Amino acid sequence: MTASSRLQKCLMTSLGITGGAILLNYGFNHRRERKAFASWTSNYTPDIRWDFNWDRRDPASLVKPSKNGKPVDDNLYNEQLEKQKSKVVRNIILIRHGQYNLSGRSDKERILTELGRYQAKLTGMRLLELNFPYTRIIRSTMSRAKETAEIIGESLPKSIIVVDDSLLEEGSPIPPEPPVGHWKPEATYTFQDGPRIEAAFRKYFHRATPEQNEDSYDIIVCHGNVIRYFVCRALQFPADAWLRFSIIHGSLTWLSVYPSGRVTLRTYSDAGHMPPEALTTS
Amino acid sequence: MTASSRLQKCLMTSLGITGGAILLNYGFNHRRERKAFASWTSNYTPDIRWDFNWDRRDPASLVKPSKNGKPVDDNLYNEQLEKQKSKVVRNIILIRHGQYNLSGRSDKERILTELGRYQAKLTGMRLLELNFPYTRIIRSTMSRAKETAEIIGESLPKSIIVVDDSLLEEGSPIPPEPPVGHWKPEATYTFQDGPRIEAAFRKYFHRATPEQNEDSYDIIVCHGNVIRYFVCRALQFPADAWLRFSIIHGSLTWLSVYPSGRVTLRTYSDAGHMPPEALTTS
Repeated sequence: MTASSRLQKCLMTSLGITGGAILLNYGFNHRRERKAFASWTSNYTPDIRWDFNWDRRDPASLVKPSKNGKPVDDNLYNEQLEKQKSKVVRNIILIRHGQYNLSGRSDKERILTELGRYQAKLTGMRLLELNFPYTRIIRSTMSRAKETAEIIGESLPKSIIVVDDSLLEEGSPIPPEPPVGHWKPEATYTFQDGPRIEAAFRKYFHRATPEQNEDSYDIIVCHGNVIRYFVCRALQFPADAWLRFSIIHGSLTWLSVYPSGRVTLRTYSDAGHMPPEALTTS
Repeated sequence: MTASSRLQKCLMTSLGITGGAILLNYGFNHRRERKAFASWTSNYTPDIRWDFNWDRRDPASLVKPSKNGKPVDDNLYNEQLEKQKSKVVRNIILIRHGQYNLSGRSDKERILTELGRYQAKLTGMRLLELNFPYTRIIRSTMSRAKETAEIIGESLPKSIIVVDDSLLEEGSPIPPEPPVGHWKPEATYTFQDGPRIEAAFRKYFHRATPEQNEDSYDIIVCHGNVIRYFVCRALQFPADAWLRFSIIHGSLTWLSVYPSGRVTLRTYSDAGHMPPEALTTS
Protein backbone atom coordinates (compact mmCIF):
# COMPACT_ATOMS: atom_id res chain seq x y z
CA MET A 1 0.00 0.00 0.00
CA THR A 2 1.42 3.39 -0.94
CA ALA A 3 1.49 6.29 1.49
CA SER A 4 -1.30 8.07 -0.36
CA SER A 5 -3.57 5.04 -0.55
CA ARG A 6 -2.98 4.48 3.15
CA LEU A 7 -3.83 8.08 3.89
CA GLN A 8 -6.85 7.83 1.65
CA LYS A 9 -8.10 4.74 3.43
CA CYS A 10 -7.51 6.47 6.72
CA LEU A 11 -9.47 9.52 5.69
CA MET A 12 -12.32 7.47 4.34
CA THR A 13 -12.52 5.43 7.51
CA SER A 14 -12.39 8.56 9.64
CA LEU A 15 -15.18 10.19 7.70
CA GLY A 16 -17.25 7.03 7.74
CA ILE A 17 -17.20 6.91 3.96
CA THR A 18 -16.98 3.58 2.22
CA GLY A 19 -18.58 4.32 -1.12
CA GLY A 20 -16.58 7.46 -2.00
CA ALA A 21 -13.63 5.54 -3.34
CA ILE A 22 -13.83 6.76 -6.93
CA LEU A 23 -14.00 10.41 -6.00
CA LEU A 24 -11.13 10.25 -3.52
CA ASN A 25 -9.16 7.99 -5.79
CA TYR A 26 -9.10 10.75 -8.38
CA GLY A 27 -7.92 13.29 -5.89
CA PHE A 28 -5.11 11.21 -4.45
CA ASN A 29 -3.93 9.13 -7.36
CA HIS A 30 -3.89 11.86 -9.96
CA ARG A 31 -0.21 11.60 -10.74
CA ARG A 32 2.19 12.24 -13.57
CA GLU A 33 1.24 10.21 -16.61
CA ARG A 34 3.29 7.06 -17.03
CA LYS A 35 4.92 6.61 -20.40
CA ALA A 36 5.33 2.88 -19.92
CA PHE A 37 2.63 1.98 -17.50
CA ALA A 38 2.75 -1.76 -18.07
CA SER A 39 6.48 -2.16 -17.97
CA TRP A 40 7.54 -5.80 -17.87
CA THR A 41 4.55 -6.73 -15.81
CA SER A 42 1.00 -5.56 -15.86
CA ASN A 43 0.12 -5.06 -12.22
CA TYR A 44 3.25 -3.92 -10.42
CA THR A 45 3.13 -1.05 -7.92
CA PRO A 46 6.52 0.40 -7.00
CA ASP A 47 7.53 1.05 -3.42
CA ILE A 48 8.23 4.70 -4.02
CA ARG A 49 7.67 6.41 -7.37
CA TRP A 50 10.42 8.33 -9.12
CA ASP A 51 9.79 12.07 -8.89
CA PHE A 52 10.37 13.35 -12.41
CA ASN A 53 10.12 16.94 -11.19
CA TRP A 54 12.79 16.54 -8.48
CA ASP A 55 14.77 19.46 -9.93
CA ARG A 56 11.63 21.59 -10.53
CA ARG A 57 12.57 21.78 -14.21
CA ASP A 58 9.93 19.51 -15.67
CA PRO A 59 8.57 21.70 -18.51
CA ALA A 60 5.00 21.42 -17.20
CA SER A 61 6.12 23.01 -13.94
CA LEU A 62 7.74 25.96 -15.75
CA VAL A 63 4.85 27.13 -17.92
CA LYS A 64 2.00 29.14 -16.43
CA PRO A 65 -1.21 27.44 -17.50
CA SER A 66 -3.36 30.58 -17.39
CA LYS A 67 -3.21 34.26 -18.26
CA ASN A 68 -5.37 36.87 -16.52
CA GLY A 69 -7.41 34.07 -15.01
CA LYS A 70 -8.19 32.53 -18.41
CA PRO A 71 -6.62 29.27 -19.59
CA VAL A 72 -4.00 29.74 -22.30
CA ASP A 73 -4.99 28.12 -25.61
CA ASP A 74 -3.52 24.70 -26.28
CA ASN A 75 -1.28 25.70 -29.18
CA LEU A 76 0.36 28.50 -27.23
CA TYR A 77 0.70 26.31 -24.15
CA ASN A 78 2.34 23.49 -26.11
CA GLU A 79 4.65 25.95 -27.81
CA GLN A 80 5.76 27.34 -24.46
CA LEU A 81 6.15 23.81 -23.11
CA GLU A 82 8.37 22.89 -26.05
CA LYS A 83 10.60 25.91 -25.36
CA GLN A 84 11.23 24.68 -21.81
CA LYS A 85 12.37 21.22 -22.83
CA SER A 86 15.83 20.04 -21.95
CA LYS A 87 17.68 18.48 -24.90
CA VAL A 88 21.02 17.12 -23.75
CA VAL A 89 22.72 15.18 -20.95
CA ARG A 90 24.53 16.76 -18.01
CA ASN A 91 27.35 14.56 -16.77
CA ILE A 92 28.69 15.29 -13.31
CA ILE A 93 31.98 13.70 -12.30
CA LEU A 94 32.54 13.97 -8.56
CA ILE A 95 36.13 13.65 -7.38
CA ARG A 96 37.08 13.15 -3.77
CA HIS A 97 40.21 15.09 -2.75
CA GLY A 98 43.45 13.19 -2.09
CA GLN A 99 44.69 11.97 1.29
CA TYR A 100 45.49 14.89 3.60
CA ASN A 101 47.14 15.78 6.87
CA LEU A 102 44.45 14.75 9.37
CA SER A 103 46.32 16.27 12.30
CA GLY A 104 46.19 19.79 10.91
CA ARG A 105 44.39 22.13 13.31
CA SER A 106 43.12 24.64 10.77
CA ASP A 107 42.01 24.17 7.18
CA LYS A 108 45.28 25.71 5.98
CA GLU A 109 47.24 22.99 7.75
CA ARG A 110 45.01 20.25 6.35
CA ILE A 111 46.87 19.98 3.07
CA LEU A 112 47.54 16.93 0.93
CA THR A 113 50.11 14.35 1.97
CA GLU A 114 52.67 13.16 -0.56
CA LEU A 115 50.38 10.21 -1.29
CA GLY A 116 47.46 12.61 -1.63
CA ARG A 117 49.29 14.61 -4.29
CA TYR A 118 50.18 11.37 -6.09
CA GLN A 119 46.51 10.30 -6.04
CA ALA A 120 45.46 13.66 -7.49
CA LYS A 121 48.10 13.35 -10.20
CA LEU A 122 46.84 9.88 -11.19
CA THR A 123 43.24 11.11 -11.20
CA GLY A 124 44.17 14.03 -13.45
CA MET A 125 45.86 11.63 -15.84
CA ARG A 126 42.80 9.37 -15.84
CA LEU A 127 40.51 12.32 -16.64
CA LEU A 128 42.85 13.31 -19.49
CA GLU A 129 42.79 9.74 -20.78
CA LEU A 130 38.98 9.61 -20.63
CA ASN A 131 39.12 12.73 -22.81
CA PHE A 132 35.59 14.03 -22.24
CA PRO A 133 34.85 17.59 -23.37
CA TYR A 134 35.01 18.90 -19.80
CA THR A 135 32.98 22.02 -19.23
CA ARG A 136 34.02 23.24 -15.80
CA ILE A 137 36.07 22.31 -12.75
CA ILE A 138 34.11 23.30 -9.68
CA ARG A 139 35.96 23.00 -6.40
CA SER A 140 35.23 23.26 -2.72
CA THR A 141 37.05 26.15 -1.07
CA MET A 142 38.79 23.91 1.47
CA SER A 143 42.57 23.64 1.04
CA ARG A 144 42.66 19.91 0.30
CA ALA A 145 40.02 20.23 -2.44
CA LYS A 146 41.64 23.28 -4.05
CA GLU A 147 45.03 21.58 -4.03
CA THR A 148 43.57 18.41 -5.55
CA ALA A 149 41.80 20.44 -8.26
CA GLU A 150 45.02 22.32 -9.05
CA ILE A 151 46.98 19.09 -9.53
CA ILE A 152 44.17 17.62 -11.65
CA GLY A 153 44.04 20.82 -13.69
CA GLU A 154 47.72 20.42 -14.63
CA SER A 155 46.73 17.40 -16.76
CA LEU A 156 43.75 19.06 -18.43
CA PRO A 157 43.32 21.80 -21.05
CA LYS A 158 43.87 25.29 -19.62
CA SER A 159 40.66 26.46 -21.31
CA ILE A 160 38.44 24.72 -18.74
CA ILE A 161 36.72 27.22 -16.45
CA VAL A 162 37.59 26.82 -12.76
CA VAL A 163 34.98 27.84 -10.19
CA ASP A 164 35.31 27.97 -6.38
CA ASP A 165 32.27 27.28 -4.24
CA SER A 166 32.12 27.24 -0.44
CA LEU A 167 28.75 25.44 -0.56
CA LEU A 168 30.77 22.34 -1.43
CA GLU A 169 32.86 22.32 1.77
CA GLU A 170 32.88 19.18 3.93
CA GLY A 171 30.27 18.78 6.62
CA SER A 172 27.66 16.54 8.17
CA PRO A 173 24.73 16.50 5.76
CA ILE A 174 22.23 14.56 7.87
CA PRO A 175 22.45 12.09 10.78
CA PRO A 176 23.19 8.72 9.20
CA GLU A 177 20.90 5.69 9.37
CA PRO A 178 22.02 3.26 10.73
CA PRO A 179 23.54 5.65 13.29
CA VAL A 180 27.19 5.68 14.28
CA GLY A 181 29.45 7.22 16.85
CA HIS A 182 28.72 9.28 19.87
CA TRP A 183 26.54 12.22 20.58
CA LYS A 184 27.78 15.48 19.12
CA PRO A 185 26.32 18.95 19.55
CA GLU A 186 23.75 19.49 16.84
CA ALA A 187 24.49 23.20 16.42
CA THR A 188 27.94 22.66 14.94
CA TYR A 189 27.01 19.60 12.87
CA THR A 190 24.04 18.97 10.67
CA PHE A 191 22.07 22.03 11.77
CA GLN A 192 24.19 24.36 9.63
CA ASP A 193 25.84 21.89 7.25
CA GLY A 194 22.64 20.11 6.22
CA PRO A 195 20.88 22.92 4.33
CA ARG A 196 24.19 24.18 2.91
CA ILE A 197 25.03 20.79 1.36
CA GLU A 198 21.44 20.47 0.16
CA ALA A 199 21.83 23.92 -1.43
CA ALA A 200 24.94 22.67 -3.24
CA PHE A 201 22.96 19.67 -4.47
CA ARG A 202 20.16 21.85 -5.86
CA LYS A 203 22.69 24.17 -7.48
CA TYR A 204 24.64 21.52 -9.39
CA PHE A 205 22.19 18.67 -9.87
CA HIS A 206 19.46 19.37 -12.40
CA ARG A 207 18.67 18.55 -16.02
CA ALA A 208 20.18 20.77 -18.72
CA THR A 209 18.55 24.15 -19.37
CA PRO A 210 16.64 24.45 -22.68
CA GLU A 211 19.47 26.69 -23.93
CA GLN A 212 22.13 23.99 -23.52
CA ASN A 213 22.77 22.33 -26.90
CA GLU A 214 25.57 19.88 -26.16
CA ASP A 215 26.19 17.27 -23.48
CA SER A 216 28.24 18.75 -20.66
CA TYR A 217 30.87 17.24 -18.33
CA ASP A 218 31.33 19.09 -15.06
CA ILE A 219 34.11 17.99 -12.71
CA ILE A 220 33.33 18.71 -9.06
CA VAL A 221 36.24 18.30 -6.66
CA CYS A 222 34.89 18.03 -3.15
CA HIS A 223 34.50 15.73 -0.15
CA GLY A 224 33.49 12.27 0.97
CA ASN A 225 30.34 13.16 2.89
CA VAL A 226 29.22 15.64 0.26
CA ILE A 227 29.64 13.12 -2.59
CA ARG A 228 27.85 10.34 -0.71
CA TYR A 229 24.96 12.65 0.13
CA PHE A 230 24.75 13.80 -3.52
CA VAL A 231 24.57 10.17 -4.72
CA CYS A 232 21.68 9.36 -2.35
CA ARG A 233 19.80 12.52 -3.30
CA ALA A 234 20.37 12.17 -7.05
CA LEU A 235 19.14 8.57 -7.09
CA GLN A 236 16.17 9.44 -4.83
CA PHE A 237 17.34 7.17 -2.04
CA PRO A 238 16.82 8.21 1.59
CA ALA A 239 19.44 10.91 2.18
CA ASP A 240 20.31 9.47 5.59
CA ALA A 241 21.69 6.37 3.84
CA TRP A 242 24.88 8.21 2.84
CA LEU A 243 27.09 6.43 5.37
CA ARG A 244 26.30 3.02 3.83
CA PHE A 245 28.92 4.04 1.26
CA SER A 246 32.67 4.21 1.69
CA ILE A 247 34.74 6.38 -0.66
CA ILE A 248 38.34 6.27 -1.87
CA HIS A 249 40.63 9.34 -2.06
CA GLY A 250 40.90 10.70 -5.60
CA SER A 251 38.13 8.38 -6.84
CA LEU A 252 35.64 9.17 -9.61
CA THR A 253 31.87 9.07 -9.12
CA TRP A 254 29.98 9.71 -12.33
CA LEU A 255 26.30 10.62 -12.57
CA SER A 256 24.33 11.53 -15.70
CA VAL A 257 21.18 13.68 -15.64
CA TYR A 258 18.96 13.15 -18.68
CA PRO A 259 16.52 15.61 -20.30
CA SER A 260 13.59 13.56 -18.99
CA GLY A 261 14.71 14.01 -15.38
CA ARG A 262 16.08 10.50 -15.09
CA VAL A 263 19.43 10.08 -13.36
CA THR A 264 21.97 7.28 -13.78
CA LEU A 265 24.94 6.36 -11.59
CA ARG A 266 27.68 5.08 -13.91
CA THR A 267 30.48 4.50 -11.48
CA TYR A 268 30.99 5.09 -7.77
CA SER A 269 34.33 5.48 -5.96
CA ASP A 270 36.11 4.27 -9.11
CA ALA A 271 39.80 4.11 -8.28
CA GLY A 272 40.97 1.37 -10.62
CA HIS A 273 43.40 3.86 -12.13
CA MET A 274 45.48 3.71 -8.95
CA PRO A 275 47.85 1.00 -7.81
CA PRO A 276 46.70 -0.88 -4.67
CA GLU A 277 49.21 0.92 -2.43
CA ALA A 278 47.55 4.26 -3.29
CA LEU A 279 44.04 3.16 -2.25
CA THR A 280 43.10 5.01 0.94
CA THR A 281 39.86 6.20 2.48
CA SER A 282 41.15 8.12 5.51
CA MET B 1 5.72 10.80 9.86
CA THR B 2 6.71 7.14 9.62
CA ALA B 3 4.43 4.51 8.14
CA SER B 4 3.72 3.02 11.55
CA SER B 5 2.90 6.35 13.19
CA ARG B 6 0.64 7.18 10.25
CA LEU B 7 -1.11 3.84 10.58
CA GLN B 8 -1.33 4.35 14.31
CA LYS B 9 -2.94 7.76 13.88
CA CYS B 10 -5.29 6.28 11.35
CA LEU B 11 -6.33 3.50 13.68
CA MET B 12 -6.82 5.89 16.57
CA THR B 13 -8.94 8.19 14.48
CA SER B 14 -10.96 5.30 13.14
CA LEU B 15 -11.63 3.97 16.60
CA GLY B 16 -12.45 7.39 17.95
CA ILE B 17 -9.59 7.14 20.40
CA THR B 18 -7.54 10.20 21.21
CA GLY B 19 -6.21 9.33 24.64
CA GLY B 20 -4.85 5.87 23.89
CA ALA B 21 -1.60 7.14 22.50
CA ILE B 22 0.70 5.60 25.10
CA LEU B 23 -0.76 2.13 24.77
CA LEU B 24 -0.70 2.10 20.98
CA ASN B 25 2.68 3.75 20.94
CA TYR B 26 4.14 0.79 22.73
CA GLY B 27 2.64 -1.65 20.30
CA PHE B 28 3.77 0.12 17.17
CA ASN B 29 7.04 1.73 18.14
CA HIS B 30 8.54 -1.19 20.02
CA ARG B 31 11.64 -1.52 17.86
CA ARG B 32 15.23 -2.76 18.08
CA GLU B 33 17.21 -0.93 20.72
CA ARG B 34 19.45 1.80 19.33
CA LYS B 35 23.09 1.65 20.32
CA ALA B 36 23.69 5.28 19.43
CA PHE B 37 20.30 6.84 19.82
CA ALA B 38 21.47 10.43 19.91
CA SER B 39 23.85 10.27 17.00
CA TRP B 40 24.94 13.70 15.81
CA THR B 41 21.63 15.22 16.75
CA SER B 42 19.25 14.56 19.55
CA ASN B 43 15.86 14.42 17.89
CA TYR B 44 16.32 12.99 14.43
CA THR B 45 13.94 10.37 13.09
CA PRO B 46 15.17 8.51 10.01
CA ASP B 47 12.97 7.98 6.95
CA ILE B 48 13.37 4.21 7.07
CA ARG B 49 15.31 2.39 9.77
CA TRP B 50 18.12 0.00 8.96
CA ASP B 51 17.01 -3.58 9.54
CA PHE B 52 19.90 -5.16 11.45
CA ASN B 53 18.30 -8.58 11.09
CA TRP B 54 17.97 -8.38 7.28
CA ASP B 55 19.89 -11.67 6.91
CA ARG B 56 18.07 -13.34 9.84
CA ARG B 57 21.43 -13.91 11.51
CA ASP B 58 21.20 -11.38 14.30
CA PRO B 59 22.20 -13.56 17.31
CA ALA B 60 19.00 -12.67 19.17
CA SER B 61 16.99 -14.19 16.33
CA LEU B 62 18.97 -17.45 16.47
CA VAL B 63 18.64 -18.30 20.16
CA LYS B 64 15.43 -19.79 21.50
CA PRO B 65 14.46 -17.73 24.55
CA SER B 66 12.57 -20.52 26.31
CA LYS B 67 12.82 -24.24 27.01
CA ASN B 68 9.78 -26.42 27.73
CA GLY B 69 7.72 -23.26 28.13
CA LYS B 70 10.05 -21.84 30.80
CA PRO B 71 12.38 -18.92 30.15
CA VAL B 72 16.06 -19.91 29.90
CA ASP B 73 18.18 -18.40 32.66
CA ASP B 74 20.11 -15.26 31.74
CA ASN B 75 23.57 -16.76 31.94
CA LEU B 76 22.73 -19.64 29.64
CA TYR B 77 20.90 -17.32 27.25
CA ASN B 78 23.83 -14.90 27.07
CA GLU B 79 26.23 -17.77 26.57
CA GLN B 80 24.17 -19.08 23.66
CA LEU B 81 23.89 -15.57 22.25
CA GLU B 82 27.67 -15.19 22.38
CA LYS B 83 28.11 -18.43 20.44
CA GLN B 84 25.97 -17.09 17.61
CA LYS B 85 27.97 -13.90 17.15
CA SER B 86 29.65 -13.17 13.86
CA LYS B 87 33.29 -12.09 14.26
CA VAL B 88 34.71 -11.16 10.87
CA VAL B 89 33.93 -9.31 7.64
CA ARG B 90 32.60 -10.94 4.49
CA ASN B 91 33.75 -9.09 1.38
CA ILE B 92 31.84 -9.77 -1.81
CA ILE B 93 33.38 -8.60 -5.08
CA LEU B 94 30.85 -8.70 -7.89
CA ILE B 95 32.25 -8.83 -11.42
CA ARG B 96 30.16 -8.24 -14.50
CA HIS B 97 31.09 -10.53 -17.41
CA GLY B 98 32.90 -9.06 -20.43
CA GLN B 99 31.28 -7.82 -23.62
CA TYR B 100 29.60 -10.66 -25.55
CA ASN B 101 28.01 -11.55 -28.84
CA LEU B 102 24.57 -9.97 -28.48
CA SER B 103 23.27 -11.52 -31.69
CA GLY B 104 23.74 -15.10 -30.46
CA ARG B 105 20.42 -16.95 -30.42
CA SER B 106 21.22 -19.44 -27.68
CA ASP B 107 23.35 -19.06 -24.56
CA LYS B 108 26.10 -21.14 -26.20
CA GLU B 109 26.37 -18.60 -28.99
CA ARG B 110 26.43 -15.68 -26.58
CA ILE B 111 30.14 -15.92 -25.90
CA LEU B 112 32.63 -13.13 -25.23
CA THR B 113 33.83 -10.89 -28.04
CA GLU B 114 37.54 -10.27 -28.45
CA LEU B 115 37.07 -7.07 -26.43
CA GLY B 116 35.14 -9.06 -23.83
CA ARG B 117 38.05 -11.45 -23.38
CA TYR B 118 40.44 -8.51 -23.11
CA GLN B 119 38.24 -6.92 -20.42
CA ALA B 120 38.21 -10.19 -18.48
CA LYS B 121 41.99 -10.44 -18.77
CA LEU B 122 42.44 -6.91 -17.39
CA THR B 123 40.01 -7.60 -14.56
CA GLY B 124 41.89 -10.77 -13.63
CA MET B 125 45.12 -8.79 -13.54
CA ARG B 126 43.51 -6.14 -11.35
CA LEU B 127 42.26 -8.78 -8.90
CA LEU B 128 45.75 -10.27 -8.79
CA GLU B 129 47.23 -6.83 -8.16
CA LEU B 130 44.72 -6.14 -5.36
CA ASN B 131 46.02 -9.39 -3.85
CA PHE B 132 43.20 -10.11 -1.42
CA PRO B 133 43.08 -13.61 0.12
CA TYR B 134 40.26 -14.68 -2.21
CA THR B 135 38.10 -17.43 -0.81
CA ARG B 136 35.95 -18.56 -3.74
CA ILE B 137 35.08 -17.73 -7.32
CA ILE B 138 31.34 -18.22 -7.74
CA ARG B 139 30.06 -17.97 -11.27
CA SER B 140 26.75 -17.87 -13.09
CA THR B 141 26.22 -20.88 -15.34
CA MET B 142 25.71 -18.74 -18.45
CA SER B 143 28.46 -19.04 -21.08
CA ARG B 144 29.61 -15.42 -20.91
CA ALA B 145 29.99 -15.56 -17.11
CA LYS B 146 31.80 -18.90 -17.11
CA GLU B 147 34.16 -17.71 -19.83
CA THR B 148 34.86 -14.47 -17.95
CA ALA B 149 35.51 -16.41 -14.72
CA GLU B 150 37.88 -18.78 -16.54
CA ILE B 151 39.94 -15.91 -17.94
CA ILE B 152 40.01 -14.20 -14.54
CA GLY B 153 41.02 -17.49 -12.93
CA GLU B 154 44.11 -17.67 -15.14
CA SER B 155 45.54 -14.69 -13.24
CA LEU B 156 44.70 -16.01 -9.76
CA PRO B 157 46.03 -18.83 -7.57
CA LYS B 158 44.78 -22.26 -8.69
CA SER B 159 43.89 -23.07 -5.06
CA ILE B 160 40.79 -20.85 -5.13
CA ILE B 161 37.58 -22.92 -5.11
CA VAL B 162 35.38 -22.39 -8.18
CA VAL B 163 31.62 -22.86 -7.77
CA ASP B 164 28.92 -22.77 -10.47
CA ASP B 165 25.46 -21.51 -9.59
CA SER B 166 22.48 -21.20 -11.91
CA LEU B 167 20.70 -18.95 -9.39
CA LEU B 168 23.10 -16.24 -10.58
CA GLU B 169 21.98 -16.30 -14.21
CA GLU B 170 20.80 -13.07 -15.83
CA GLY B 171 17.16 -12.10 -15.61
CA SER B 172 14.66 -9.40 -14.76
CA PRO B 173 14.65 -9.12 -10.99
CA ILE B 174 11.75 -6.70 -10.57
CA PRO B 175 10.01 -4.11 -12.78
CA PRO B 176 12.18 -1.00 -12.55
CA GLU B 177 11.04 2.33 -11.14
CA PRO B 178 11.05 4.66 -13.03
CA PRO B 179 9.71 2.26 -15.68
CA VAL B 180 11.27 1.77 -19.09
CA GLY B 181 10.55 0.06 -22.34
CA HIS B 182 7.51 -1.62 -23.63
CA TRP B 183 5.14 -4.17 -22.26
CA LYS B 184 6.55 -7.67 -22.06
CA PRO B 185 4.81 -10.86 -20.97
CA GLU B 186 5.14 -11.21 -17.23
CA ALA B 187 5.41 -15.01 -17.27
CA THR B 188 8.80 -15.08 -18.97
CA TYR B 189 10.22 -12.07 -17.12
CA THR B 190 10.09 -11.13 -13.47
CA PHE B 191 7.58 -13.79 -12.47
CA GLN B 192 10.22 -16.54 -12.55
CA ASP B 193 13.43 -14.50 -12.43
CA GLY B 194 12.44 -12.35 -9.45
CA PRO B 195 12.37 -14.99 -6.70
CA ARG B 196 15.36 -16.81 -8.23
CA ILE B 197 17.55 -13.69 -8.09
CA GLU B 198 16.25 -12.94 -4.60
CA ALA B 199 17.22 -16.51 -3.65
CA ALA B 200 20.74 -15.83 -4.94
CA PHE B 201 20.87 -12.69 -2.83
CA ARG B 202 19.85 -14.52 0.33
CA LYS B 203 22.35 -17.29 -0.38
CA TYR B 204 25.40 -15.08 -0.84
CA PHE B 205 24.64 -11.95 1.16
CA HIS B 206 24.76 -12.41 4.91
CA ARG B 207 27.12 -11.73 7.79
CA ALA B 208 29.82 -14.33 8.52
CA THR B 209 28.80 -17.45 10.41
CA PRO B 210 30.09 -17.71 14.03
CA GLU B 211 32.50 -20.41 12.82
CA GLN B 212 34.24 -18.10 10.34
CA ASN B 213 37.46 -16.77 11.89
CA GLU B 214 39.02 -14.71 9.13
CA ASP B 215 37.74 -12.05 6.76
CA SER B 216 36.66 -13.62 3.48
CA TYR B 217 36.77 -12.34 -0.11
CA ASP B 218 34.30 -14.02 -2.46
CA ILE B 219 34.41 -13.17 -6.15
CA ILE B 220 31.04 -13.54 -7.85
CA VAL B 221 31.11 -13.38 -11.66
CA CYS B 222 27.62 -12.69 -12.89
CA HIS B 223 25.42 -10.16 -14.68
CA GLY B 224 24.43 -6.52 -14.87
CA ASN B 225 20.84 -6.81 -13.64
CA VAL B 226 21.79 -9.28 -10.91
CA ILE B 227 24.58 -7.04 -9.59
CA ARG B 228 22.43 -3.92 -9.61
CA TYR B 229 19.62 -5.72 -7.80
CA PHE B 230 22.11 -7.07 -5.21
CA VAL B 231 23.43 -3.55 -4.55
CA CYS B 232 19.93 -2.18 -3.92
CA ARG B 233 18.99 -5.09 -1.66
CA ALA B 234 22.28 -5.07 0.28
CA LEU B 235 22.05 -1.34 1.00
CA GLN B 236 18.34 -1.63 1.87
CA PHE B 237 17.26 0.64 -0.96
CA PRO B 238 14.02 -0.08 -2.84
CA ALA B 239 14.84 -3.09 -5.04
CA ASP B 240 12.99 -1.56 -7.99
CA ALA B 241 15.63 1.20 -8.12
CA TRP B 242 18.16 -1.15 -9.76
CA LEU B 243 17.88 0.45 -13.21
CA ARG B 244 19.04 3.83 -11.85
CA PHE B 245 22.51 2.28 -12.11
CA SER B 246 24.52 1.61 -15.25
CA ILE B 247 27.31 -0.99 -15.17
CA ILE B 248 30.52 -1.49 -17.15
CA HIS B 249 31.66 -4.85 -18.56
CA GLY B 250 34.33 -6.48 -16.39
CA SER B 251 33.85 -3.88 -13.65
CA LEU B 252 34.29 -4.48 -9.90
CA THR B 253 31.56 -3.81 -7.36
CA TRP B 254 32.71 -4.38 -3.81
CA LEU B 255 30.46 -4.76 -0.78
CA SER B 256 31.46 -5.59 2.81
CA VAL B 257 29.11 -7.25 5.31
CA TYR B 258 30.10 -6.62 8.93
CA PRO B 259 29.45 -8.81 11.97
CA SER B 260 26.91 -6.28 13.24
CA GLY B 261 24.80 -6.65 10.10
CA ARG B 262 25.94 -3.33 8.64
CA VAL B 263 26.79 -3.30 4.93
CA THR B 264 29.12 -0.92 3.07
CA LEU B 265 29.45 -0.30 -0.66
CA ARG B 266 33.14 0.41 -1.34
CA THR B 267 33.13 0.75 -5.08
CA TYR B 268 30.54 0.33 -7.82
CA SER B 269 31.21 -0.41 -11.50
CA ASP B 270 34.90 0.31 -10.92
CA ALA B 271 36.63 0.01 -14.28
CA GLY B 272 39.54 2.38 -13.86
CA HIS B 273 41.87 -0.54 -14.58
CA MET B 274 40.78 -0.47 -18.22
CA PRO B 275 41.80 1.95 -20.95
CA PRO B 276 38.94 4.17 -22.21
CA GLU B 277 38.54 2.17 -25.44
CA ALA B 278 37.69 -0.93 -23.38
CA LEU B 279 34.84 0.72 -21.46
CA THR B 280 31.55 -0.73 -22.67
CA THR B 281 28.16 -1.34 -21.12
CA SER B 282 26.38 -3.21 -23.92
